[in-house]
Amino acid sequence: MIVALAGGVGGTKLVLGFSRLLSRDQLTVIGNTGDDLEMFGLRICPDLDTIAYTLGGQVNPETGWGIEQDTFACLKALQQLGAPSWFNLGDRDLATHLWRTSLLQQGHSLTQITEKMCQMLEANCRLLPMTDSYTPTYLVTDQGELHLQEYLIREKCRPVVRDLRYVDTETAAPAPGTSEAILKAEGVFLCPSNPFISIGPILAVPGIRELLVQTDTPVFAITPIVNHRALKGPAAKMLEELGHPVSPVAVAKLYQDFLDVFVLDEQDAQLRKEIEALDLKVIVTNTIMNDDQEKVHLAEILLEML
Amino acid sequence: MIVALAGGVGGTKLVLGFSRLLSRDQLTVIGNTGDDLEMFGLRICPDLDTIAYTLGGQVNPETGWGIEQDTFACLKALQQLGAPSWFNLGDRDLATHLWRTSLLQQGHSLTQITEKMCQMLEANCRLLPMTDSYTPTYLVTDQGELHLQEYLIREKCRPVVRDLRYVDTETAAPAPGTSEAILKAEGVFLCPSNPFISIGPILAVPGIRELLVQTDTPVFAITPIVNHRALKGPAAKMLEELGHPVSPVAVAKLYQDFLDVFVLDEQDAQLRKEIEALDLKVIVTNTIMNDDQEKVHLAEILLEML
Repeated sequence: MIVALAGGVGGTKLVLGFSRLLSRDQLTVIGNTGDDLEMFGLRICPDLDTIAYTLGGQVNPETGWGIEQDTFACLKALQQLGAPSWFNLGDRDLATHLWRTSLLQQGHSLTQITEKMCQMLEANCRLLPMTDSYTPTYLVTDQGELHLQEYLIREKCRPVVRDLRYVDTETAAPAPGTSEAILKAEGVFLCPSNPFISIGPILAVPGIRELLVQTDTPVFAITPIVNHRALKGPAAKMLEELGHPVSPVAVAKLYQDFLDVFVLDEQDAQLRKEIEALDLKVIVTNTIMNDDQEKVHLAEILLEML
Repeated sequence: MIVALAGGVGGTKLVLGFSRLLSRDQLTVIGNTGDDLEMFGLRICPDLDTIAYTLGGQVNPETGWGIEQDTFACLKALQQLGAPSWFNLGDRDLATHLWRTSLLQQGHSLTQITEKMCQMLEANCRLLPMTDSYTPTYLVTDQGELHLQEYLIREKCRPVVRDLRYVDTETAAPAPGTSEAILKAEGVFLCPSNPFISIGPILAVPGIRELLVQTDTPVFAITPIVNHRALKGPAAKMLEELGHPVSPVAVAKLYQDFLDVFVLDEQDAQLRKEIEALDLKVIVTNTIMNDDQEKVHLAEILLEML
């Protein structure tokens, strides 16, 4: 059994690779809920949804998020009412948020709801939220403090990021099953997700980082930076704005206290020694996953390393 | 200026007639919110929406409720998730509920939101909810206690109704503007709506019925029963199950304490004396409104009576 820590679209590529090679019992995914958002009274969990939609075969292949061939009649009507409509709410996608919100109000936990969702969508993994609490990530920017989704979508990542706040994580507990999964795992994989807004929030839940430090289970991180660029999203821009070099080495340093193996892209092979100097093992391979075959291939290489 | 008390589809026919003859300042509609429902975390106000959609020219002409050419992608996805899907939620209609819920959570009152909605939809009336509180109507039936919408839609009006409960009305106040509107009106019209589930909840808000008793403003009721049948919905069935004859006379008696004029359909002209014996004036005319012309025509007749 392995554990994967994943954010949204980028990390889900590797999760899909694992899911094609492992049974549901062999793959536990701890999903970021720091990008969760409360809007129109609904609880929206973009990263959990991306993982469940992708593994359930429903995801929009054009975007990597949302549902294939979804319609946007509700969103257009919201625009006509003058309501905020910057968050992409597909009509079918909306059903997930309505259903989740309803179950939360009935007293079900996000863990229970997420498990049920994976069952309904036939998503082949055990998907756990990092916590059952609502712990949204806020960014301190030159435009003021922004919810992560405001920064990502409404502001299209334009503001300069000065700091991050993982709101209410201090009092949050890891979701039931997460600690046990990490302790039992043969390997823990940090997917190629943004270290600040995808992996960072998971590590900020009290106990999770500490467990990764203590456990003998080997912990792998797959680089989200290749050839000075992020594979997806604002990881490169954020590294720079937060005072780090745009380099896999900087990412490795963020995880140095608990990491065992860093998976470097072959385009950055020259950085191997620099990362080994951090007392980490290094695997050099192609980490760019352009299609499902490449996702499975990278997952195969990683599983062989165990 | 006149005031109309209205429920859903039936009452809205007459409201539409009035709205074609009067300016916005001349027509205040007090809408039933006893059929409001909280579902999926959303506040749904079917009667207010029916009135606003109808006057805004958006209503589905086939049903008299919902939005014309709406789609149901979200509802289908809810079904696939195993969520309750008996309540008809169109994708565009859903935007209204999301927007309303969001504004309620931001601290706006239902009165303010409803006013804004009418502005956005260009609905030509001043539409007031009966109260800003949530006071759902429950029916005591042979199948147990049911929310009005569960009875109407999920159970298709099949259960036998033994009693009604206008929940939490004891502590509710009339929405701001309702009492002033009744006091200033040249006439108050109880639209041809169900006396138990459309007009009854409005009259149950403390102060409204008392005001109608006290005011010198003439109060008219248009019969919802014609030739022993309800024009729409379960009014006849409910009259019977609650121990009343299925007759306009029974409806007139329900309003006898505050009513001045009862508008009887010409098919029931023989009942004139019986209603006059209740110390009510009686107008006999065609009350059945099959098209917009007939809606305007009935409204014209009623306005002439003032």
